[in-house]
Amino acid sequence: MPVETIRWSDGDIVIIDQTLLPETCQLLTLTSVEMVAEAIRSLRVRGAPAIGIAGAMGMALAAHGYRGCSAAELRAELAAVSEVLAATRPTAVNLFWALNRIGQLIASVPDADVATLRQSILREAQLILEEDRAACRAMGRNGAALLPDECTVLTHCNAGGLATGDFGTALGVIYAAAEAGKRVRVFADETRPLLQGSRLTAWELRQSGIEVTVLCDNAAGSLLASGAIDAVIVGADRIAANGDTANKIGTYPLSVLAREHTVPFYVVAPTSTIDPAIATGADIPIEFRSGEEIGNGFGRRTAPEGVHYYNPAFDVTPAANITAIITERKVEHPPYLFSFR
Amino acid sequence: MPVETIRWSDGDIVIIDQTLLPETCQLLTLTSVEMVAEAIRSLRVRGAPAIGIAGAMGMALAAHGYRGCSAAELRAELAAVSEVLAATRPTAVNLFWALNRIGQLIASVPDADVATLRQSILREAQLILEEDRAACRAMGRNGAALLPDECTVLTHCNAGGLATGDFGTALGVIYAAAEAGKRVRVFADETRPLLQGSRLTAWELRQSGIEVTVLCDNAAGSLLASGAIDAVIVGADRIAANGDTANKIGTYPLSVLAREHTVPFYVVAPTSTIDPAIATGADIPIEFRSGEEIGNGFGRRTAPEGVHYYNPAFDVTPAANITAIITERKVEHPPYLFSFR
Repeated sequence: MPVETIRWSDGDIVIIDQTLLPETCQLLTLTSVEMVAEAIRSLRVRGAPAIGIAGAMGMALAAHGYRGCSAAELRAELAAVSEVLAATRPTAVNLFWALNRIGQLIASVPDADVATLRQSILREAQLILEEDRAACRAMGRNGAALLPDECTVLTHCNAGGLATGDFGTALGVIYAAAEAGKRVRVFADETRPLLQGSRLTAWELRQSGIEVTVLCDNAAGSLLASGAIDAVIVGADRIAANGDTANKIGTYPLSVLAREHTVPFYVVAPTSTIDPAIATGADIPIEFRSGEEIGNGFGRRTAPEGVHYYNPAFDVTPAANITAIITERKVEHPPYLFSFR
Repeated sequence: MPVETIRWSDGDIVIIDQTLLPETCQLLTLTSVEMVAEAIRSLRVRGAPAIGIAGAMGMALAAHGYRGCSAAELRAELAAVSEVLAATRPTAVNLFWALNRIGQLIASVPDADVATLRQSILREAQLILEEDRAACRAMGRNGAALLPDECTVLTHCNAGGLATGDFGTALGVIYAAAEAGKRVRVFADETRPLLQGSRLTAWELRQSGIEVTVLCDNAAGSLLASGAIDAVIVGADRIAANGDTANKIGTYPLSVLAREHTVPFYVVAPTSTIDPAIATGADIPIEFRSGEEIGNGFGRRTAPEGVHYYNPAFDVTPAANITAIITERKVEHPPYLFSFR
């Protein structure tokens, strides 16, 4: 990435405000837990791995901002902050995974004083970021090996550098393939309602000099039917133990169409996205968002007053439609049986 | 319809400018063939049956505007006008069908003088409108019989009053069912890029007091998977002899998803939409439109500079995915073998 999506900077968190892309690439300094929660809710920072990092850094920010000297008081405050951050978005499991990891760290040092707690939490948050960077590179290598030397790939939403601490999950595979000398062209679904595909994926692919074609989500059907696509590659927000995968709304229909046209359908995600506590996709909580995202999304009203809206942010792709799940550890094929962590 | 989509008014054509809906319902008077062609190209008037009517009325407008007294000169002028109108949009066959019908009428009265030609063409154009009205009612009746007394229907794009001379094709079925006392709720795909679903379908359903829920096109997959939809009902722009159907981009993926979830998929269109000269959908010309519709559609740039766009306006649904084709004559079931006109 030409700019870091999220980083710790001297007691604050600095993010790219992704709501302003592609017109403006503006950094935003988050100086309070409230600002972090708002940034996650409003998708200023988004993408399953990135909101995990944001959650962990939010905990570090809270510890950093604590002005008292009672470790017990700080622990109580951090527990409350963790709940605030966990309540921002329900589907991506990485947020809960990261908050849980910070919680376990705190529990593991019952005698730590305020300064030690503060330092340990920051170190853990930075470790989560470092691990995500390494995971991106490993996923990239694992996935790139699956792509032919010249290929055209369809992706949905943004599972790129803007969604992670490094160069992404689905897009990481594409960047890694390009770095390995393969010629990869990308078709990017615009991804209504918030257009993360046209605003973010197309922007970062352009920044990296990769040829990109933007299409409306509903044009992917005839594109796949035309034979132009060699693989569909997407990220994930939560993967159940059986491989069922929640990802951005519109992923499920792509998986059905890919199967219909015998195009491989790859999910790329770090193991922190796998939730072995959830047996199947039916149990993954799906976030519903405001209808205003549909009816009034671009500074112009595009639906009349008085209508209802159906605006789930995610859908679930059954494991049977997924050719392979690419993690930083390996390439998994069906049947998927995830129990590790 | 509360307002007529298209009508002849004292030597001019009056249409609703559909690009301004749902914010403004404004009538536009077309006083020249150039204005008619621009209105069709820019989708101020759209929908396969409506652009057929607009084409025929455009011919009447040309005849009306002719100030000379040579029938031969008028015939030559009309032949040129027919070519201009035919070049506006390539996919919907109703336009060519209507222009051809006017052409045959002109050829059938080789001795007619200017006044007679003018009168005959106007009468034929008005007859096409009248026939479309009757066809809408008949399609409505034929289709409504297929719907249960209480049901939820998914539709795509606008195949309603705004697309025809009366209350529509796909939406005509819904209006007729409601008139027959059935309780029909509608989910309307917003239909990117030009949002005919949220702007037009939702608007006219609201005007008629029918409950409507707007969704992004990519949310139809999980909606169909949820079991909430009893039938998918769409219009058509051209139907090949074997039943393959070109309709608004995004129709094909809906047909695959409907089949996946055993939801009936109905196409509703007048016989003027059937093109028996075309054997299969592979031969239907598909219009590609400007990428600006995708990347700069709402007064805000939503994709970065330097990307390519893939923007077909239509896709083809194979006959095998279509449960029934409802015309004004009857309900056709597969295998479809259209040779009549």
